[in-house]
Amino acid sequence: MVSEMSELKAMTKQLLLNAFGGESMAHMRYLVFAEIAEKEGFPNVARLFKAIAFAEQVHARNHYNVLREYNTDETVSAGTPIGPGSTSKNLELAIRGEEFEVNEMYPVYLEAARYQGVSEAEKSFRFALEAEKIHAKLYREAKEYVDQGRDMPIKGKVWICPVCGHTYIGEEPPERCPICGASRSMYRGF
Amino acid sequence: MVSEMSELKAMTKQLLLNAFGGESMAHMRYLVFAEIAEKEGFPNVARLFKAIAFAEQVHARNHYNVLREYNTDETVSAGTPIGPGSTSKNLELAIRGEEFEVNEMYPVYLEAARYQGVSEAEKSFRFALEAEKIHAKLYREAKEYVDQGRDMPIKGKVWICPVCGHTYIGEEPPERCPICGASRSMYRGF
Ligand SMILES: [Fe+2]
Ligand SMILES: [Fe+2]
Ligand SMILES: [Fe+2]
Ligand SMILES: [Fe+2]
Ligand SMILES: [Fe+2]
Ligand SMILES: [Fe+2]
Repeated sequence: MVSEMSELKAMTKQLLLNAFGGESMAHMRYLVFAEIAEKEGFPNVARLFKAIAFAEQVHARNHYNVLREYNTDETVSAGTPIGPGSTSKNLELAIRGEEFEVNEMYPVYLEAARYQGVSEAEKSFRFALEAEKIHAKLYREAKEYVDQGRDMPIKGKVWICPVCGHTYIGEEPPERCPICGASRSMYRGF
Repeated sequence: MVSEMSELKAMTKQLLLNAFGGESMAHMRYLVFAEIAEKEGFPNVARLFKAIAFAEQVHARNHYNVLREYNTDETVSAGTPIGPGSTSKNLELAIRGEEFEVNEMYPVYLEAARYQGVSEAEKSFRFALEAEKIHAKLYREAKEYVDQGRDMPIKGKVWICPVCGHTYIGEEPPERCPICGASRSMYRGF
């Protein structure tokens, strides 16, 4: 294990750090946005924000765990949309963050990890990329409802895979996670 | 409100952003460390990590809220200790992070906000600085127990002020928060 980790390349290490920073901030933004949605009378959108905050926690934890062999202080450079406001505006910020991760950040990070042959980082980036695609879609749906002054309908629960952050709305989680293969019983419902 | 915020100086704005990034990562690290402490059989240390994770959430939310008039994408530069491992090692990382905030980061951020006359930022940095002093002390105490193979004794609960992140161990929270003046009934217990 130690020998495997000592081969972690400097560039990939920095990308893991930046992704840890980005996911930690995404998690935090969604907790702030959930509080505001609750106050504005959109309880299902609040639930969606809380559930996806947990998915981002899964991503942050996965990235951070790849760095386990170190004991150093590092500097992270990561992007964040700013300007919390109404739930409509917050959904706009959320969509922008997710779309950046889907279209720019994770594809490049994934390619870099693959090129440098760091399979643990590649897996962690791939799990995040696949989940973010679903987040972007769900936030776009939520914004359509909120912009009509309505809460988003949620039949059942928002289910999160605690291994990869896969996000699914339904009465029951899928039998197996389509991203990582985890079994139904592992999902956490919100 | 809009006119007040449009006076937010560029330097202070960047420090708020960096502090938002730093607090978001501290929150996330402590959630990761809490899970590990739980598994290692240190339930009270896990509780301490979870409670302080919430205090860092309060700090991150306060910093982020000062930026409410914007609708832009920004880049954050923030430090984080890396290398999650045993609870003893994690407490070492936690102490290092808190001590950096107490001795270097927040005193400088506070001075910059004061110098630029941004009172909302000054308040947000001051709340964090005062709470981090307590965090550093509590983590040092916890590490002494863990390094003897013992869980930290906690009489009562770990209480967090949801306005400023003040952290207090006892049967009851204080009548008034010594940092921000919030009343006893507002505290959240862990
Ligand atoms: Fe994510
Ligand atoms: Fe996401
Ligand atoms: Fe999964
Ligand atoms: Fe803090
Ligand atoms: Fe702290
Ligand atoms: Fe307080």
